[in-house]
Amino acid sequence: MVIVMAPDATSAHIDAVVDLVATAGGEAYVTRGVSRTIIGLVGDVRHFETLDLRALPGVSDVLRISAPYKLVSRENNAERSLVTVRGVPIGPGYTTVIAGPCAVETPEQTLQAAHMAADAGASLLRGGAYKPRTSPYAFQGLGEAGLKILSDVRDETGLPVVTEVVDASDVELVASYADMLQIGTRNMQNFALLQAAGEAGKPVLLKRGMNATIEEWLMAAEYIAQRGNLDIVLCERGIRTFEKATRNTLDISAVPVAQDLSHLPVIVDPSHSGGKRSLVLPLSRAALAVGADGVIVDVHPKPETALCDGPQALVESDLPELRDAAQTHAALLGRTLAEAPVPAAV
Amino acid sequence: MVIVMAPDATSAHIDAVVDLVATAGGEAYVTRGVSRTIIGLVGDVRHFETLDLRALPGVSDVLRISAPYKLVSRENNAERSLVTVRGVPIGPGYTTVIAGPCAVETPEQTLQAAHMAADAGASLLRGGAYKPRTSPYAFQGLGEAGLKILSDVRDETGLPVVTEVVDASDVELVASYADMLQIGTRNMQNFALLQAAGEAGKPVLLKRGMNATIEEWLMAAEYIAQRGNLDIVLCERGIRTFEKATRNTLDISAVPVAQDLSHLPVIVDPSHSGGKRSLVLPLSRAALAVGADGVIVDVHPKPETALCDGPQALVESDLPELRDAAQTHAALLGRTLAEAPVPAAV
Amino acid sequence: MVIVMAPDATSAHIDAVVDLVATAGGEAYVTRGVSRTIIGLVGDVRHFETLDLRALPGVSDVLRISAPYKLVSRENNAERSLVTVRGVPIGPGYTTVIAGPCAVETPEQTLQAAHMAADAGASLLRGGAYKPRTSPYAFQGLGEAGLKILSDVRDETGLPVVTEVVDASDVELVASYADMLQIGTRNMQNFALLQAAGEAGKPVLLKRGMNATIEEWLMAAEYIAQRGNLDIVLCERGIRTFEKATRNTLDISAVPVAQDLSHLPVIVDPSHSGGKRSLVLPLSRAALAVGADGVIVDVHPKPETALCDGPQALVESDLPELRDAAQTHAALLGRTLAEAPVPAAV
Amino acid sequence: MVIVMAPDATSAHIDAVVDLVATAGGEAYVTRGVSRTIIGLVGDVRHFETLDLRALPGVSDVLRISAPYKLVSRENNAERSLVTVRGVPIGPGYTTVIAGPCAVETPEQTLQAAHMAADAGASLLRGGAYKPRTSPYAFQGLGEAGLKILSDVRDETGLPVVTEVVDASDVELVASYADMLQIGTRNMQNFALLQAAGEAGKPVLLKRGMNATIEEWLMAAEYIAQRGNLDIVLCERGIRTFEKATRNTLDISAVPVAQDLSHLPVIVDPSHSGGKRSLVLPLSRAALAVGADGVIVDVHPKPETALCDGPQALVESDLPELRDAAQTHAALLGRTLAEAPVPAAV
Repeated sequence: MVIVMAPDATSAHIDAVVDLVATAGGEAYVTRGVSRTIIGLVGDVRHFETLDLRALPGVSDVLRISAPYKLVSRENNAERSLVTVRGVPIGPGYTTVIAGPCAVETPEQTLQAAHMAADAGASLLRGGAYKPRTSPYAFQGLGEAGLKILSDVRDETGLPVVTEVVDASDVELVASYADMLQIGTRNMQNFALLQAAGEAGKPVLLKRGMNATIEEWLMAAEYIAQRGNLDIVLCERGIRTFEKATRNTLDISAVPVAQDLSHLPVIVDPSHSGGKRSLVLPLSRAALAVGADGVIVDVHPKPETALCDGPQALVESDLPELRDAAQTHAALLGRTLAEAPVPAAV
Repeated sequence: MVIVMAPDATSAHIDAVVDLVATAGGEAYVTRGVSRTIIGLVGDVRHFETLDLRALPGVSDVLRISAPYKLVSRENNAERSLVTVRGVPIGPGYTTVIAGPCAVETPEQTLQAAHMAADAGASLLRGGAYKPRTSPYAFQGLGEAGLKILSDVRDETGLPVVTEVVDASDVELVASYADMLQIGTRNMQNFALLQAAGEAGKPVLLKRGMNATIEEWLMAAEYIAQRGNLDIVLCERGIRTFEKATRNTLDISAVPVAQDLSHLPVIVDPSHSGGKRSLVLPLSRAALAVGADGVIVDVHPKPETALCDGPQALVESDLPELRDAAQTHAALLGRTLAEAPVPAAV
Repeated sequence: MVIVMAPDATSAHIDAVVDLVATAGGEAYVTRGVSRTIIGLVGDVRHFETLDLRALPGVSDVLRISAPYKLVSRENNAERSLVTVRGVPIGPGYTTVIAGPCAVETPEQTLQAAHMAADAGASLLRGGAYKPRTSPYAFQGLGEAGLKILSDVRDETGLPVVTEVVDASDVELVASYADMLQIGTRNMQNFALLQAAGEAGKPVLLKRGMNATIEEWLMAAEYIAQRGNLDIVLCERGIRTFEKATRNTLDISAVPVAQDLSHLPVIVDPSHSGGKRSLVLPLSRAALAVGADGVIVDVHPKPETALCDGPQALVESDLPELRDAAQTHAALLGRTLAEAPVPAAV
Repeated sequence: MVIVMAPDATSAHIDAVVDLVATAGGEAYVTRGVSRTIIGLVGDVRHFETLDLRALPGVSDVLRISAPYKLVSRENNAERSLVTVRGVPIGPGYTTVIAGPCAVETPEQTLQAAHMAADAGASLLRGGAYKPRTSPYAFQGLGEAGLKILSDVRDETGLPVVTEVVDASDVELVASYADMLQIGTRNMQNFALLQAAGEAGKPVLLKRGMNATIEEWLMAAEYIAQRGNLDIVLCERGIRTFEKATRNTLDISAVPVAQDLSHLPVIVDPSHSGGKRSLVLPLSRAALAVGADGVIVDVHPKPETALCDGPQALVESDLPELRDAAQTHAALLGRTLAEAPVPAAV
């Protein structure tokens, strides 16, 4: 931390800062300039944050300079991490495609969508059994019945399952069916849920809050990591801006920025970012080209009757192009397209 | 809903829309213009939302025209509502001040802050025992011990207690101590929490999400109302914008807009909006002048040692000015400053 | 400026920073902490800004700590300024209402609107002869014919005229008719226009850019001030955010923040912020209560036929309420409602 | 346009809408639903916009459904356009790289940067002689002396010149030196400048305003097109959001969206979006992969002494990678990397 004193700060003001820092076990280094004095703090920033330095007389500004997350930071872990979901790798050296329906509706629809996912080059199946919806009058998911469908489809196709959990009290149940827990954009700062996911013993896919800074996203990941779970994959899915031509604004720069600040893998959701089927393939190419470790896309056998987000789902005829893009961009960047495990029973 | 067809839509395209709407039990009215055809839908919009109208060939746009919330809307309840918290009114005819420390730290600090609140004209005491913090390394609140402190201070001062709950599984416990449950900005779309609060039998203070539109805020309130609880007070507390001179941007217009769309009372939190003590009094005056039903402010006996948000807390010398502003603006608008109940034991 | 070095910065990296700063005539003070070294710069920040300090090896961050504007800053001019427009004061001690039609359409409409303005307590007449419109197909104003109408109406009513100028080459012409030049939100960073306005010898009303930070707004004012014109009034008129229930989001906090950072008067435009007639009175009250030096509002004798922004114009029946609000809030804050000069010829 | 009536609108209200529309030469089609009546308007939307339909009693909402630009729209021009700058193509079938220094500083620096541009695969040279700067104390460019340097460097290297113009009164002078006029982000709604550029007889590179919607950007292009100049290239350069980890947020989705709405070529500026050298190559790859018609990047022989935006300039060692990316992605998408003309005199 750096404390900038006001031009009219007195020696007594400066001494008060130094003393308060000392009570928190820190050291303060004073630099007197022509018009301003600056005080650099050395020690544990967590202790300094409990002090109200800004409220002291003579203090003009307090600038924090250390990252407020540690376990997920790259500063402390220079090697980027590889996360494995029932044998499927996500991270350096691989390009991983996750695909499936936005919501699980029926066994048939889910199985068809899983076959579509495989055709699109996916090695993991996504699908929601618990759907957080803005309106209480919208379809909220099938709950445990949906989890069972996902589990059955995994048995048949071999595709490990990624599915969302929306409440801390559901984590144990969802984790008993899923191979990877997804935490959605509206729950990125549901800290009880993050902590429960950190203890569930399954990898976690953490979507960025639509209004969250990259720093806040990494702090949310730190909540999971603190409970002993470092198998976290970050997912950029668009942020809220003034632009209304797209559902959200895909922050493509967040991929290299997050990969630089954190050792965790970073993937992109082009379906929820753009909100339109016609944007999914161009945005997938952009995501892979910028260096994302994968993409997660909506596919649906019959989008016009989908109970959730049909307009953004890819259809049968789009799948070869997505698979090609994934293979081409993986090759360009010296990566391997991740493959699904062979189904046990086949 | 209104469906706008593309310029090149054919009669078959139009017929397909009409037929699909019919399958959902609705009626479609077709208007053919020179360059475009428009189809108006009549019936239950919830059924139409399960259709994927945008995905049909020839459809250019789908425009929703009915409010996606009903129980909290003013369209269906023309009279604005009065919510009562252990005898203290919030709503039309009253100006209500809620004050207290951001976080409960000790019994002494909480009692002192409660006396400060009373001096500031407050009839309700705020204070956090569960604190949702962006960083896992920040102070997270005292938990149940904090609730007990609040309860003791209520017994001594007579001020009913407003306190935050951050997880659905804590609602019952918090409701056993509190007089009003607060749902914070990060949890505005924690739907399990909203539903649990709707069943807790206590009034709810629902803060606007820092990235939520007014419409989303009202839909969040609808989640609570659906469970049978209409004792909801909305609280505008600033939204996230590009401006960094303030902690958040107080959306002062949200007060008259929300009061026009919903029958629920609307108050303002000038402390978390501005993030600076010097802004709290001007923003409180603005809130009262725009027609807010009250304000909720941070006060602290010793902000420079506060464990949370010290820089925005009012201090002793600010209190008379807040009380005066509340009384003056209440009088200007023909309202009465709400009073705290007399403590039982005194 | 403060330079934060990376954890792995070497002594050679630090020396390179110190040397580069010295070449720009500055001094660098080095503070070595346990994990980081911090370098404080003393001297003329303008010279440092020409250096590319961030690009030097070992530099992690560069933090600027001095205000990038001087002439308009309050740091250097502790007293708030009073600007006088043909005898009408704007600034400390006064509450000033400016009113008139968004666009000048006809002599009759403008004269009627001027009488409405006077009824609303206004001492200055606003009205646009040059209208910057997003669409090239929208009404762009009457040009010089509109200026002549404004001038005639001033002669008849005595109300000095505030009108917008949109291009540097028009400044001389507009200044020959107007008493105060308005620079609109879209032109806040049209630097040639700012400089021309700075040399025109008339007071300037500088609207905040809808996407501009308060700091950028003050730097835009500094462009005017640099040309020798300190008769500048700042006008907050709403910023662009994700919220779509209002035309823009009125940043009410910008008033006290800008008054704290700058000595210039600050007024509010509630008409363009809210974009709806029903919001103008509540937002005017909020603006006056927060401490604004005045408001500028749209009035129109027949808004349903207005060529520009009719939905936000006040009508005849709204005027007494605006005048009352201006008088009441002026009295509350110990200010005087500014009065128009008596027309010379009448 | 579609007009949505309020639930309590009367027949007289509806008739009043129909009559007012008729006075503007339009036709109104009335659809009565169970709870609402909808009126569709057919005719010239420009006439309807002069009516104040929202202010009529009984009107709940007015929805616009036609694009407010025509000349630049793809609806009216299905084929995407190719723009040629002194023989260098930008548009379908080509990938075009534009590179050069942010600001022209000296003849040597500019010539070196031009050679760097050529090494990076560029066929056009960018460089600013007029620099719009937020602070009046920052370097503002060399003016005409800078234009002469650019012209000399073009003669020596053969690279046509793209350079910014910031004031309508400078357009003729700048056009006498430049091969393409650039209009910067702060001037996207400087309508006098747009109109002057439309008459200058040179192609125009129109950057998106940092706060402009895609629709507003296309309306700004329409201002240029209205003056008879359709040689316009759109440039996405990042928008302003709450995220501060990057200088701006590159709106990568704007590329396919704008290409879908308009027939004009669309390129991307990864340098000003990200604001950091390390982001320029990943964002260039993303831009090319998403389907942009080219990129415009900053290069500088010695960024650490650059007078403007040094931290985002590519250096010598980055150039082969940019050239490779441009060639690879051009090939992937079946495009040809545009080549510079051979210098006449060499």
